[in-house]
Amino acid sequence: MEKIQDYLNQNKERFLNELIELLKIPSVSADPAYSHDVLDAAETVKTRLLQAGCEVAEICDTQGYPVVYGEKIVNPNLPTVLVYGHYDVQPPDPLDLWNSPPFEPVIKNTELHPEGAIFARGSCDDKGQMYMHVKALEFMVRTNQLPCNVKFMIEGEEEVGSESLGEFVAQNKEKLANDIILISDTGMIGKETPSITTGLRGLSYVEVEVTGPNRDLHSGLYGGAVANPINILAEMIASLHDGNNHITIPGFYDKVDELSMEERAEMAKAPFDLTAYKKALDIDDVYGEKGYSTNERNSIRPTLDVNGIWGGYTGEGAKTVIASKAHAKISMRLVPHQDWKEITQLFKDHFEKIAPSGVKVKVTPHHGGQGYVTPIDEIGYQAASKAYEATFGKTPIPQRSGGSIPIVSLFEKELKSKIILMGFGLDSDAIHSPNEHFGVWNYLKGIETIPYFYHFFAELSKVNTP
Amino acid sequence: MEKIQDYLNQNKERFLNELIELLKIPSVSADPAYSHDVLDAAETVKTRLLQAGCEVAEICDTQGYPVVYGEKIVNPNLPTVLVYGHYDVQPPDPLDLWNSPPFEPVIKNTELHPEGAIFARGSCDDKGQMYMHVKALEFMVRTNQLPCNVKFMIEGEEEVGSESLGEFVAQNKEKLANDIILISDTGMIGKETPSITTGLRGLSYVEVEVTGPNRDLHSGLYGGAVANPINILAEMIASLHDGNNHITIPGFYDKVDELSMEERAEMAKAPFDLTAYKKALDIDDVYGEKGYSTNERNSIRPTLDVNGIWGGYTGEGAKTVIASKAHAKISMRLVPHQDWKEITQLFKDHFEKIAPSGVKVKVTPHHGGQGYVTPIDEIGYQAASKAYEATFGKTPIPQRSGGSIPIVSLFEKELKSKIILMGFGLDSDAIHSPNEHFGVWNYLKGIETIPYFYHFFAELSKVNTP
Repeated sequence: MEKIQDYLNQNKERFLNELIELLKIPSVSADPAYSHDVLDAAETVKTRLLQAGCEVAEICDTQGYPVVYGEKIVNPNLPTVLVYGHYDVQPPDPLDLWNSPPFEPVIKNTELHPEGAIFARGSCDDKGQMYMHVKALEFMVRTNQLPCNVKFMIEGEEEVGSESLGEFVAQNKEKLANDIILISDTGMIGKETPSITTGLRGLSYVEVEVTGPNRDLHSGLYGGAVANPINILAEMIASLHDGNNHITIPGFYDKVDELSMEERAEMAKAPFDLTAYKKALDIDDVYGEKGYSTNERNSIRPTLDVNGIWGGYTGEGAKTVIASKAHAKISMRLVPHQDWKEITQLFKDHFEKIAPSGVKVKVTPHHGGQGYVTPIDEIGYQAASKAYEATFGKTPIPQRSGGSIPIVSLFEKELKSKIILMGFGLDSDAIHSPNEHFGVWNYLKGIETIPYFYHFFAELSKVNTP
Repeated sequence: MEKIQDYLNQNKERFLNELIELLKIPSVSADPAYSHDVLDAAETVKTRLLQAGCEVAEICDTQGYPVVYGEKIVNPNLPTVLVYGHYDVQPPDPLDLWNSPPFEPVIKNTELHPEGAIFARGSCDDKGQMYMHVKALEFMVRTNQLPCNVKFMIEGEEEVGSESLGEFVAQNKEKLANDIILISDTGMIGKETPSITTGLRGLSYVEVEVTGPNRDLHSGLYGGAVANPINILAEMIASLHDGNNHITIPGFYDKVDELSMEERAEMAKAPFDLTAYKKALDIDDVYGEKGYSTNERNSIRPTLDVNGIWGGYTGEGAKTVIASKAHAKISMRLVPHQDWKEITQLFKDHFEKIAPSGVKVKVTPHHGGQGYVTPIDEIGYQAASKAYEATFGKTPIPQRSGGSIPIVSLFEKELKSKIILMGFGLDSDAIHSPNEHFGVWNYLKGIETIPYFYHFFAELSKVNTP
């Protein structure tokens, strides 16, 4: 790619500063207290798209937070790339575990990032990765090397389940028409080991409430004589896995796509250092479903995790109380062919059924989405693979990820195109955690690699066009 | 008792207003934010003791909150009554479930209390019940009818385990020397069914922390592959009871005092309406240890309850996180012969042992205390029984309570005297819960009954003295 290295060298500081400004906006979509900031982030993204070379950029209202749409149409006969990303971020808490405030970005060197990493909520997920595409566009436009039409669809509800995006996509099929969808909201194996995500897990996220007595009770006077909702909730949660860590919900595995031994053998070739993995997390041992390796457990197997639990007295000291209510947030990661709505219903039916008669149970579905698998013989995948080869000097490894971008399978269904997941983050970036960060090297490598994707995608499309 | 009814009628409004002023002080001992208020409550109690007729009243410093001591020595040859109570209160949360602010007392009529009940944190436990003794003293002093010496020991750490009181008692045995200890910090069966508490359960209160990975993780990338501390904590808690709701900690039941079938048959005669019990709590069914009735489960049997649990994301909306840590507060109610320190150690050993290798477990003992049984053939019990007969027109029922006043067995050990538990609260008073209240009728009935206790205790002591 002509002059990309020069362009990066000349504009590196500006690229970093622009991202830092965007990261200062606390666009937490889960908490209504931040709604003004979420809208502020949308406006900023719109402005940046116009500055980068989009001819059109607009704030598209939805039932929830708006979608920022932008486009640069070079020639209707050229292929069109649709870039998807999100400008909202996860809640930053627990705040006391951050070494620097989550919305005051700082660049610090780490062992993995001797060139520095930007520490801030959203630095990797997804403002940093989304903004690589904006800066890649700037380069291609300013150096007159944009070989495709490009459209941007940047939403503000990804961290709360993309509730409004489904309707937006369904109502704007023509506007969003494209030949390939490009997303950077995943990771790669390592800086020396580029990889492309070829699979995502689906998601079903629910909240449960267990109610015992109609008020908090004194644990001395009532303890042992009435069902304690916290104990009951613990028992109900515990019963969702058996001794082999299989999930016990009837029907849960019925539609799970079981990989062949050959496919599993292929997967097992991906570099993985169990000792380093355990050391990085400071755990004595890994834990999970019997009969599967760590890399299988977090990618090709469905899971059930409690993401939050609360009930009773949680303050300083001691309170001898039996709580009236106990709550938990529970999510299930799903694999191809598991339907998230069906799984949510199976969970609800089962959880209500296993409640003992001393309590009442309420299950509230939060959101969910289907899993997705990218076929590696598509030209989109081939173009991405060649782009990594050009900038990393290595063929990237196709990898199934454990994460979910629930909206991905909807894109394929509604827009009839394939999705390429070019992620430049690392597992150690601590997305969704305190001290989230994104390597400066990774950020610049993304900006460098993306224009090659456009180049090869345009080339391969020409070959494929009769 | 000469003129007690007249005195009550003349002073009722003042007695209520004085208690209301005391209840306005948010003396929450569990939360350091209230430390100034806790000390304020101690000062107020001291002043009230002097006003009621104590010749001496003083604030006695301890390592924690002070003990308020007061005395009125009529004649060294007369028997001495030591009154114990506490001026600290439970934390008021969850605040949003209170119908009126916890520290702005209001008198409202209820179905059970057509004469009105005082709604405030501490109204029953224990400011209201403690203050009955102060006002009973006032009556006896002003009408020249005090037949015993009287000492008051009112502490400020009962709700956090009376940590400093043990040392205070051990160092002040002479000062506290007495013939009987009188405590109103329990309840009675009903306004028409007076009862005296003859047994208390012991208590062991611990906090547990389960740590998995060294930081919060993205549940998509790690879900299923590492031990989730919340799921593990739920499993560990669930495993503490078996299918019959017996506690599974090895050795837990070894020293439990098993009642004979005769004793259990006697207990079963106490009036109890299961339908009304379930209706009052709005539960479909009771729940507990197989083979025991509700009244046995909450009095003669040991129990294990989770009093609080927390971990992960508990805010609005959804966060797909695997928490690094999960916590719970767990208390065990113990029965005679179970030693709380031994049980705490058994819990700690067992809980650490059952942790799977993917997590680390920390067990922190909070506090505890031994159970206690009052012999009903002692003159203290006889005097109390006659006092209730005089004011209720009925012989009170001796009753084992499920609650704990951990310091009670220490009093017996250090001061070599028996303890009489004359409680005037009702189960429905919602102590430790939102909307705690204490019936105006109960408050006044306590003030009326207590002087009769002094009268009969002096009388029976004379008979017993050679």
